[in-house]
Amino acid sequence: MSTKEFTRAPNHFDARITADGSSPWPVEPGRYRLIVSRACPWASRALVVRRLLGLEHAISVGVADPIQDERSWRFTLDPDGRDPVLGISYLHEAYHAADPAYAGGISVPAIVDIPSGRLVTNDYPTITTDLSTQWRACHRPGAPDLYPEHLREEIDEVNRRVFRDVNNGVYRAGFAGDQEAYADAYHRLFACLDGLSERLEGRRYLVGDTITEADIRLFTTLVRFDAVYHGHFKCNKRKLTEMPVLWAYARDLYQTPGFHDTVDFDHIKRHYYMVHTDINPTRIVPEGPDLTGWLTPHGREALGGRPFGDGTPPGPPPPGEAAPTIEELTAAGR
Amino acid sequence: MSTKEFTRAPNHFDARITADGSSPWPVEPGRYRLIVSRACPWASRALVVRRLLGLEHAISVGVADPIQDERSWRFTLDPDGRDPVLGISYLHEAYHAADPAYAGGISVPAIVDIPSGRLVTNDYPTITTDLSTQWRACHRPGAPDLYPEHLREEIDEVNRRVFRDVNNGVYRAGFAGDQEAYADAYHRLFACLDGLSERLEGRRYLVGDTITEADIRLFTTLVRFDAVYHGHFKCNKRKLTEMPVLWAYARDLYQTPGFHDTVDFDHIKRHYYMVHTDINPTRIVPEGPDLTGWLTPHGREALGGRPFGDGTPPGPPPPGEAAPTIEELTAAGR
Repeated sequence: MSTKEFTRAPNHFDARITADGSSPWPVEPGRYRLIVSRACPWASRALVVRRLLGLEHAISVGVADPIQDERSWRFTLDPDGRDPVLGISYLHEAYHAADPAYAGGISVPAIVDIPSGRLVTNDYPTITTDLSTQWRACHRPGAPDLYPEHLREEIDEVNRRVFRDVNNGVYRAGFAGDQEAYADAYHRLFACLDGLSERLEGRRYLVGDTITEADIRLFTTLVRFDAVYHGHFKCNKRKLTEMPVLWAYARDLYQTPGFHDTVDFDHIKRHYYMVHTDINPTRIVPEGPDLTGWLTPHGREALGGRPFGDGTPPGPPPPGEAAPTIEELTAAGR
Repeated sequence: MSTKEFTRAPNHFDARITADGSSPWPVEPGRYRLIVSRACPWASRALVVRRLLGLEHAISVGVADPIQDERSWRFTLDPDGRDPVLGISYLHEAYHAADPAYAGGISVPAIVDIPSGRLVTNDYPTITTDLSTQWRACHRPGAPDLYPEHLREEIDEVNRRVFRDVNNGVYRAGFAGDQEAYADAYHRLFACLDGLSERLEGRRYLVGDTITEADIRLFTTLVRFDAVYHGHFKCNKRKLTEMPVLWAYARDLYQTPGFHDTVDFDHIKRHYYMVHTDINPTRIVPEGPDLTGWLTPHGREALGGRPFGDGTPPGPPPPGEAAPTIEELTAAGR
């Protein structure tokens, strides 16, 4: 293993918000704010889960500017450059309210306690499963079970592989310090994608016959694949559009309510290409790829499966929360 | 038009080698050496034309290392780091033998007069057409006419557009100094490719019904498209593999004797990704794309056309001159 390998920093704040009083942070509608960047795949998991479960009215959302500055994520998209609920200009203010001595990275997703302004957690793997399991009392009627008890072992196992070789694998390729570390990540990534293609050839979803946490975690990487990882991170054996099973699978999810309305290709592209000046010093953002293929029929209904199990699809997102559509971006020349 | 646009420098040395004694440089087999990089699309035109016309025994070839250093193209692939015929370590030595005060760029293709060691010409547009028209006495039996008199006007017209928007267009995209200059080049490039796709849908070659200079000039850009221009130069609306007509057209030419044996994907990728540190500071070379598609059937025979007109295909390249095949590169893990 090369010593020039990219290593993801652990999340420092891993408190949990629980339903049973076992932590200092109780489930309580209206009390917490989820801070995301629509660019970020880890944060986007939480956006999708929140939408599918109908937690929009229990947990509000703040969207950071996709372009961090030297003080990291900031609320420059909001009036006066402040998050309208938390009243802060930079996400680090919530981190430092929780721990004034904190000197680590500032990441999204982040859940902030609105009354105290303190960060509760930036631990993305727990955030989404806790939305499923701890926040059940606040789910909408018809919310799916994204982390069903009897499938957890299988979901966790798939998630482990997908995290290592795909979710984090693309970063290991893109941020590799030398050719060897890059090549290792590249080959593991495409070997894993080949395995996932095989698995998904005859079944609509990764685990069971409904959408689960496993699909959401794979989706947030696949939706960024051709727009960013293929070129910017040199994951260029094939485009997603050249992997027929995964491409149809990703389109199926994209076209499902609760997925596409969280995806902002403009934020995604500008973030990666303008922030990582070590690999894209010109900060020029590619005009491509052509995104219209995301809207084409995928044919995966023929495989059966019940996207929401015994539940129902979510309604439209709250006013002002939907990401711009591909048609809107195309019309705006983005 | 943005002021941050990439502008290609003119070629300083544009002497011509002529058949009729109208220049100081007469056509003479064995007298000149063609210096190329297999990475370079402009030089590769000359390699293809030389092969198709059977000029291998009249004009020898020296292949520079795909990675220039601060003194530019060098002969580090040859024993003792010297071109075995010219005896020089760097191509600039031939430039300075021709003009000791020369302070411009050192480019390939370059034709060098062997007896004096002086550069004759680096003017790539004239080099290939002169191989067709001035060197006729040295062509092999069955050599095609790549620049037929009655089609020159049309060939020149196609070449003008292809140069501006495609051959040089990819560089204008990749070396743009700002978003506006890049976007302008990107949109012109794909508009031109769309037009070429339409033109080639019902006809096998760009002009007439045989391979001409126009096809060769388009080919050397298309063959580099997915390996380099798509990612490195951000020409990423679509891959060549996603433009069915052009992809079949490019495969047809690639599979024609005289084309594929000049193409070295290893040189191509290492050159662009390791030399342009301003846009790829890590110098990491992508492992992709998967190249095996180049060998698949193209179906273009159905359009008719006579690749070599009344002539014949060239035989195999001289010993030691063939570029490594895709199978060889794949076996070597490149």
